[in-house]
Amino acid sequence: MNRAVVLMMLIGCAPAPTPRSTTPDWVSDTKSYGSGTASSAAPTTVAAAPASPAAAPAKPGTLAEHYREPVGKILAAAHADRAAYHKLSYLTDRIGNRLSGSPALERAIAWAAQAMKDDGHDVRTEKVMVPHWVRGAEAAELTQPIARPLHVLGLGGTVATPKAGITAPVVVVHDWAELDAKQAQVKGAIVLYDVAMPTWTEDNGAGYGETVQYRGAGASRAAKYGAVAVLMRSVTARSLRTPHTGALNYADGVAKIPALAVTVEDSMLIARLAAEGAVTVHVRSDAQTLPDAVSANVIGELRGRDKPEEIVVIGGHIDSWDVGQGAHDDGAGAVMMMQALTTLRKLGLTPRRTIRVVLFTNEENGLRGGRAYAKDHAAELPNTVLAVEADSGGFAPRGFTVQTKPEVQDRVKARVADIGSLLAPIGASRVTIGHGGADIGPMVPSGVPTLGVDTDGSTYFDYHHTDADTLDKVDPAALADDVAAVAALAYVVADMPDRIDAP
Amino acid sequence: MNRAVVLMMLIGCAPAPTPRSTTPDWVSDTKSYGSGTASSAAPTTVAAAPASPAAAPAKPGTLAEHYREPVGKILAAAHADRAAYHKLSYLTDRIGNRLSGSPALERAIAWAAQAMKDDGHDVRTEKVMVPHWVRGAEAAELTQPIARPLHVLGLGGTVATPKAGITAPVVVVHDWAELDAKQAQVKGAIVLYDVAMPTWTEDNGAGYGETVQYRGAGASRAAKYGAVAVLMRSVTARSLRTPHTGALNYADGVAKIPALAVTVEDSMLIARLAAEGAVTVHVRSDAQTLPDAVSANVIGELRGRDKPEEIVVIGGHIDSWDVGQGAHDDGAGAVMMMQALTTLRKLGLTPRRTIRVVLFTNEENGLRGGRAYAKDHAAELPNTVLAVEADSGGFAPRGFTVQTKPEVQDRVKARVADIGSLLAPIGASRVTIGHGGADIGPMVPSGVPTLGVDTDGSTYFDYHHTDADTLDKVDPAALADDVAAVAALAYVVADMPDRIDAP
Repeated sequence: MNRAVVLMMLIGCAPAPTPRSTTPDWVSDTKSYGSGTASSAAPTTVAAAPASPAAAPAKPGTLAEHYREPVGKILAAAHADRAAYHKLSYLTDRIGNRLSGSPALERAIAWAAQAMKDDGHDVRTEKVMVPHWVRGAEAAELTQPIARPLHVLGLGGTVATPKAGITAPVVVVHDWAELDAKQAQVKGAIVLYDVAMPTWTEDNGAGYGETVQYRGAGASRAAKYGAVAVLMRSVTARSLRTPHTGALNYADGVAKIPALAVTVEDSMLIARLAAEGAVTVHVRSDAQTLPDAVSANVIGELRGRDKPEEIVVIGGHIDSWDVGQGAHDDGAGAVMMMQALTTLRKLGLTPRRTIRVVLFTNEENGLRGGRAYAKDHAAELPNTVLAVEADSGGFAPRGFTVQTKPEVQDRVKARVADIGSLLAPIGASRVTIGHGGADIGPMVPSGVPTLGVDTDGSTYFDYHHTDADTLDKVDPAALADDVAAVAALAYVVADMPDRIDAP
Repeated sequence: MNRAVVLMMLIGCAPAPTPRSTTPDWVSDTKSYGSGTASSAAPTTVAAAPASPAAAPAKPGTLAEHYREPVGKILAAAHADRAAYHKLSYLTDRIGNRLSGSPALERAIAWAAQAMKDDGHDVRTEKVMVPHWVRGAEAAELTQPIARPLHVLGLGGTVATPKAGITAPVVVVHDWAELDAKQAQVKGAIVLYDVAMPTWTEDNGAGYGETVQYRGAGASRAAKYGAVAVLMRSVTARSLRTPHTGALNYADGVAKIPALAVTVEDSMLIARLAAEGAVTVHVRSDAQTLPDAVSANVIGELRGRDKPEEIVVIGGHIDSWDVGQGAHDDGAGAVMMMQALTTLRKLGLTPRRTIRVVLFTNEENGLRGGRAYAKDHAAELPNTVLAVEADSGGFAPRGFTVQTKPEVQDRVKARVADIGSLLAPIGASRVTIGHGGADIGPMVPSGVPTLGVDTDGSTYFDYHHTDADTLDKVDPAALADDVAAVAALAYVVADMPDRIDAP
């Protein structure tokens, strides 16, 4: 995830992070909910919730009031269910990591399509051509003032070094200003971006966006000054000599130079040595970019009973980096959406509108799946009432982040908070303005309101894009509650009389 | 560290861990301290500390009362000093890891001797022959039911596999009873000990001892049943796909089979797959044991002014595993002791007795340094009033653990607690019965009381014996306080009128 956040920040269209409110903004909604909020076959017809004796007079007409009963059923069913974890276990343990162009990604796509068919959904795949970058062998070592191996992972998309590698002096910088100030030294050198990611806090989150810009743009900005390669301190606040890969973006018209992530430890070592004298590093990479490969988005639907042409998209991405198992990023998001749809189908909860799971391909190094979806479904976007993406791991749910056109932001946020109030039992009531999702981002300019599934982010970036993003890091109970949050939210949005962004 | 704890536990002579008391056992000591507690040249002659108006009537005669002033000077000087960290930075960044038999270990020994000379101490080295095990290339991968690379580190001392490696089915066990129960399946198989280390807690510590026994004895116990190799889940409660090495002990009369640590993640993966069907792994190791190599213990002294033949030993080990930088294990312990002696010398605090720093060689895979010291200095042991070892990392000090002959345990503990009360400003007043130290362990049977430097253990085993044991994990301020604690304790013990174990 989050590559697109950075892209959007770089091009100036990402919403500025706002402090999280700890209490949702409640809303009184006086729309009429007279009929048909649940399928007639299911025992879920909404009844007026009995007013608590101690409570203020009931406010009939709010979303929470009207959907308390079906949401209660959804939460109870999903909370107790471990099917999402079982799906994730197959995806991670049996298929494994799945970079665009790899046979594993195509196996994952075929598996996901079959699993959604087995769960009774209407399933299809939509072809997408994706980049096919292959890491190959890579290595780096300090050669002066001491010989020491470095722990590296090439950045996704990096060009190769010459066969013999590149040996060059290192110039260490900590921000763009220092790069500019040292430009005379940079020519012919390897630039190390020793940029530390802040420690996660509940109030400030992870500080990923402010750090990862160097991974994205660092190679080209150093190449402009004549650098021959770049090393990037891994974007994480916690490391056990763990390199983190991730995408880079070569700017047009600038020489493409090799770019590798080094561990936090190695970056700090080089910086310490460089503060005392000359440092030389040898780097080597065999990375190749092959012709684009065939891949696909996977789509599974629960067709709406009343307005099937209106759609709530719930998605995650099926691809991952070529390390670890892609468990939190984004296997968890993919199975969460698959299981949310299955939860509703098993409960017989068929909403007014269609709920569509989209498992996007190629989020990590191209966003081709998300772009193709927005383009191929352009005619449907006016009828796409909401798109939700889960790409923050399978940690305990906290709520949702809202990203929409400015003019509908307040009312979408208020209604999500109204629905979110029903998710208090699983701790998922927090609703803030923030990032929707990388794959659903291309729908935002067409006016589709988007939500991101917000989770406990305290450890996400420890594992992100590393060999440590493995199934054992996922708590089955937390993942089940994610499913509950998404299923409930999607059900209400798909079933409510008016669109969520209606005036 | 801690290899010896395990050995001692296996042979039944390690002290059982006791719950830590949160308040030290205070003691009233009525010995006379009439004169000469500091060198006459230094402005540190002990004056009666003014009684705090709010305090109970002073108890003249306690160690704390008498040494409050010099200890205050020691704490103030050491707390503000970063020389230990600077030493550690040279040892780790410029010399690096230093396994027995490596040129790096001999460079470290020469550097430490010179550094102690430069600080004005009386220095010598004492030759010790050490094992010379060399890791070589090693690798492992799952071959059935899926192909997947495994992250491994051979255990120190492992024999090699045949050149082509070993491919065999895996039998997963979680304890000795399960190994015994599965013995019929073990013949011809690779045994995986998937034994989880408990999470550290303040009350229970790390649970290392109960887990590491499998690393130590697992190969031979599996070989008795005909296993062809063993894999050991890394002994840690926190992992980012981080393999942890460490010593193993081949039993006499049993076939020596290769033994490699796998990461927690890989161990759990294999266990999950094995619960569903057959699992096959390929392992390969080129490890070699070469003829013993020449090494040395390094000794630096501050000669006592009054009873120079009585000795307080303060030590750590200068060797490390062949991964990471050996920063916490045990570079921090080595520089802590070096700097504690320097702190006293710079303050002009020459105690009655001699304080001797011993930097032991070969703690990690042989304990030859500790054994040689106890043997070669056997004649001095009756005059060795105390031995202190730092081998729990350079984290913030908490106090000391006491290991002595049973008959003097209470009085040694009480006097250490008395001195420890002066260390409250740096949080180092906790005194418990526990492990003294691996290298000083061979002195215990001769009656030498021993202490371990107790530190905040919450993250020690995350880094232990891994590539992540690097300088960046050491907080210079915490290490300075370790120096303060050791310097103060050693000074008082070396200066007090009677021996610390005197009736």
